[in-house]
Amino acid sequence: MLSKNLSKYVQSLHQKKYRQEHGAFLVEGAKSVREVLLSGFQVEILLITDQFYKENDLLPHNQRPRTEFVTPAELERVGTLASNNTALAVVKTRENRPLAAEPGELALVLDDVRDPGNLGTILRIADWYGIRKIICSDTTADVYNPKVISASKGSFTRVDWWYGDLVAWLKQQPDIPVYGAFLDGGNVHQTAFGGTGYLVMGNESNGISPEVAALVSRRVTIPRYGGAESLNVGIATAIILDNWRRGHPLAP
Amino acid sequence: MLSKNLSKYVQSLHQKKYRQEHGAFLVEGAKSVREVLLSGFQVEILLITDQFYKENDLLPHNQRPRTEFVTPAELERVGTLASNNTALAVVKTRENRPLAAEPGELALVLDDVRDPGNLGTILRIADWYGIRKIICSDTTADVYNPKVISASKGSFTRVDWWYGDLVAWLKQQPDIPVYGAFLDGGNVHQTAFGGTGYLVMGNESNGISPEVAALVSRRVTIPRYGGAESLNVGIATAIILDNWRRGHPLAP
Repeated sequence: MLSKNLSKYVQSLHQKKYRQEHGAFLVEGAKSVREVLLSGFQVEILLITDQFYKENDLLPHNQRPRTEFVTPAELERVGTLASNNTALAVVKTRENRPLAAEPGELALVLDDVRDPGNLGTILRIADWYGIRKIICSDTTADVYNPKVISASKGSFTRVDWWYGDLVAWLKQQPDIPVYGAFLDGGNVHQTAFGGTGYLVMGNESNGISPEVAALVSRRVTIPRYGGAESLNVGIATAIILDNWRRGHPLAP
Repeated sequence: MLSKNLSKYVQSLHQKKYRQEHGAFLVEGAKSVREVLLSGFQVEILLITDQFYKENDLLPHNQRPRTEFVTPAELERVGTLASNNTALAVVKTRENRPLAAEPGELALVLDDVRDPGNLGTILRIADWYGIRKIICSDTTADVYNPKVISASKGSFTRVDWWYGDLVAWLKQQPDIPVYGAFLDGGNVHQTAFGGTGYLVMGNESNGISPEVAALVSRRVTIPRYGGAESLNVGIATAIILDNWRRGHPLAP
C-alpha cells in the first residue's frame, strides 16, 4: 500500500517543474525498469508488483533501492501509463554537462524538437545507430518527460544528452563538420560524410532556426519521389543516420 | 447548427463497423480536407467553419458536396480530433480491388501491422518515396480509421491499397522478387534491389508471419550499430525504401 506522501511525490514528477526541483524522473514498464536497473542511473525508489518481483531476478533487499510492493491499480494511479502491471522506478536525473563529438564520432544536435514522442523515437534511433551523444537546444522537449522515456524503449540508458545554447556551443566547435537537414541541401545519397561531426535536426514545423542554420557547414536533403510534403523528424533522423553509417559502419 | 441525425451519422463513422455499413469515412483538419477535395475521392458531406470558408477557395455551392457550416465546438464534438477549428469531410470509401506491382514498380505489403499511427506513417512514407500501392493483410489496421487518415497527413489521397489474404495473393505473384524485413537477413546496405518487386513489413511485435515468410524470396535487415533492440515498423519501412531508391531514383 502506497503512502499518501509517496503517491504525491511520484505524481509530482509528471511535471517538469517538480522533476527539476527534486532532480528525479519516472521510468515505467517492465522493460524500461529492467534496463534502468542495469544502467549507470541511480534508482531512488522502486514500485513493483508481485508479478514483476516473481518474473525478475532482483538483487537482495539490502543491495537494491528502496522497494515498495504495489498493485497494478496503484501503479496506474501514480504513474502516466494507462496500463502498467509491472513496475515504476523513481530515478535521479544526471548532471547537465556539455558534450562534444570525439574523433570518429557523429553526435546529434536537436534544435527545438518539441514533441516528446519524437524525442523518444530519436533516442531509440540514435541508440540503434550507435550514436552516444545528443545536444539539445533549451527549447527541445524535456528528455525526462515520461513520454520521452517511454518512447525511447530503454534507449535513454545508452545515450547521453546535454541541454544548452546551441549557437554559443556550435561556435566553440569550429573545425568539425556540422551537417544539417534542410529541404534544399545536397542529396543525402550522394553526400560523402566524414566520420566525425554533428548532425543538426530542426523543429517539426519550422526546421532549423536561422541562427543555427548559419553555423551548419553542409546542408543535406533526403530526396523525395512522391507527393508527401515532409517526413517526420524521427524518420528523417533515421534515414540520414542510415546514410551516414554506410560510409562509417564500424560498430562502437 | 448540426442536426441530430447528421451528428449521429458522423459519430458512427468513428467505428469500423459503421464505416463498412455506410461505405464512408472521416477526413479531419484543414490540410487533409483540402487534399481530399482535390483528390479522386468522392466527398459526401463537408462540415466547415466560417474561418475555413474564408481561407479557402471552395467551388460554388452547386458544384461542391453538401456543405454545413459549423462551429469548432461542433467539429470537436462529432469528430475525433481534440482540436479542430477548420473542417471535416465525410468521404466515400473505395472499392477493395486487388493490386499488383507493374514492371519497374515496388509495392508495399503489410502483414498484420496493427497500430493505426504506424499505418498512417507508412502511407506518408510510401507517398514520399513514390510508392503507389500497399497490399494489406486482413488483420492490418483499417486504413479508414480516423487515426490512420490523420497520421498520413494527406498522403492517403495518393496511395492505393487492397486488403486480402496475403498468402493466396503472393502465390499468384511467382516471378516477382519479394523482399521482406527480418532481423536475420542480408544487409540492406549491400542488397542489390531490382526495380520491380514487393517489400513485406511485418507485425510490430512478431514481425512477418511464418506463412508469409515462406513466400519471401529475399530477406533484408537494417544493420544495427548500438543497443536498441528494434526499430519501429514505420522507421524500418522508411530506411528500406530509402535504400531501394538509391538504385532506382526515377521519380514516378
